Amino acid sequence: MKVITTPEEMQAISQQNKFEGKKIAVVPTMGFLHNGHLTLVKKAKEVADIVITTLFVNPKQFAPNEDFERYPRDFERDKKLLTESGCDYLFSPDISSIYPIDFATSISIGGVTKVFEGESRPTHFDGVALVVLKLFNITLADIGLFGQKDYQQTLVIKKLVKDLNLNIKLLITPTVREANGLAMSSRNRYLTDEEKNKASIIFLSLEEAKNAIAHGERRRKMINSVVISTLRSVPEIKIDYVATVKSENLELADEFLPGEEVVILIACFMNQTRLIDNTIIKIPTAFTENFIE
Amino acid sequence: MKVITTPEEMQAISQQNKFEGKKIAVVPTMGFLHNGHLTLVKKAKEVADIVITTLFVNPKQFAPNEDFERYPRDFERDKKLLTESGCDYLFSPDISSIYPIDFATSISIGGVTKVFEGESRPTHFDGVALVVLKLFNITLADIGLFGQKDYQQTLVIKKLVKDLNLNIKLLITPTVREANGLAMSSRNRYLTDEEKNKASIIFLSLEEAKNAIAHGERRRKMINSVVISTLRSVPEIKIDYVATVKSENLELADEFLPGEEVVILIACFMNQTRLIDNTIIKIPTAFTENFIE
Repeated sequence: MKVITTPEEMQAISQQNKFEGKKIAVVPTMGFLHNGHLTLVKKAKEVADIVITTLFVNPKQFAPNEDFERYPRDFERDKKLLTESGCDYLFSPDISSIYPIDFATSISIGGVTKVFEGESRPTHFDGVALVVLKLFNITLADIGLFGQKDYQQTLVIKKLVKDLNLNIKLLITPTVREANGLAMSSRNRYLTDEEKNKASIIFLSLEEAKNAIAHGERRRKMINSVVISTLRSVPEIKIDYVATVKSENLELADEFLPGEEVVILIACFMNQTRLIDNTIIKIPTAFTENFIE
Repeated sequence: MKVITTPEEMQAISQQNKFEGKKIAVVPTMGFLHNGHLTLVKKAKEVADIVITTLFVNPKQFAPNEDFERYPRDFERDKKLLTESGCDYLFSPDISSIYPIDFATSISIGGVTKVFEGESRPTHFDGVALVVLKLFNITLADIGLFGQKDYQQTLVIKKLVKDLNLNIKLLITPTVREANGLAMSSRNRYLTDEEKNKASIIFLSLEEAKNAIAHGERRRKMINSVVISTLRSVPEIKIDYVATVKSENLELADEFLPGEEVVILIACFMNQTRLIDNTIIKIPTAFTENFIE
């Protein structure tokens, strides 16, 4: 695996690979890799000839009060893990090469960016969209891979690709979890073992909601109640938001329809650490029809 | 020449051409083509294998009070002119295929967009940047060609390419003029023959300023005065702005330095019609040195 640090060199290498008819996949990351990232890299290797993992802790997606400075970093460990996962290039640029002193461009994506994470973190998604657009352009990727854990982010990237006519396919892979169900995240490193155990309630609360839906629940508030009451059993958890919405566009409904796909989104704090998780559920058709009779 | 109307088809054709190793040049236009555009198309043919001319009157670069609705259009004439000029594809999409009902993305470029044209037309350049970015992505162009007549626009596009790491080369070609010196523009069609004759004062005023610089003038205000007093000799001309600035970044200076490249920008109304023009001048080195002694 080759480490590349400048956009110019990365783009020239990608250009050469494209010229040779090779298909390029990119896995954008902020480093401090876990099995979720490595699953993306391995998937990328299956669908493309060349895999580029980008490692860039993007200041523009952090608010001033957030953890940009203390975001966990371990370059040597990331490099080793990526080499072992079959990654071809690790693109790891300086901040100043991505945002030079005269950098003056911003991008704004409406709709899906304004709610939930977008409400809690108002500049977050525009920062994500900007850096992802730059990374797509630098790597000349044919395929971009993202994890379902950052569900709303996947919608933002889909919208970016559609609205700007980017010539790239997106591949969203399921959330990878710890044995106890906790969604893998670089921020889990902020948690003690005890906190990690207790944070597994997040996954459990999603499973409870899934159960309720399997048993016929279709009312948004009731689904949310199941999640919230489960989360409340752990006093260290402070809920930021819990929402059940249409998976396609994050729209609310009082009651979901048979066949509709919903996503349950959770953001909460385990003590000081902000964690997110989600699950996608299809409202069952057969059962609901019986239920109506 | 083939006429393409959907982004999907255009991108698929471009993808196929790239796959065959062909170099693509794009000439973005709003149609109602004149010799300035056709010069760009011919230049494009020299530097690339495939030439795509885009014809799209972009609503997002017009303010509500501007001439979007009455902007001149003549598709059949444009098609004929492009065919004769050796253009390979005319991409002429509907508004709804470029900006579908759920379109929600905007882009903002700082610095060079905020002055002169950007002051007179505050949303103009962000609208230009957005559509040009989309057209670059749809056509997968290797080279984009633009005329120097829209000088500030060329700086905006350069900034777009740099800030977003677009993998495209830009080629800026000199302004093509009528016999009397009037810069060619689709908006000239709003002018009567008499107005066209009188509007040649714009070119003349730039020539006068060039002369003054050749004779040693380096003071910004004096250069502007030469332009303004020349323009004032035609009472039908109403000046919007006249500015002499560094060509690279549109920065002001009280006095320009030997070797520095400046651009003189004019925007004015000939009766109801807004016209712009510019000239790039290098402040002479030798003369100025003598002048200092």
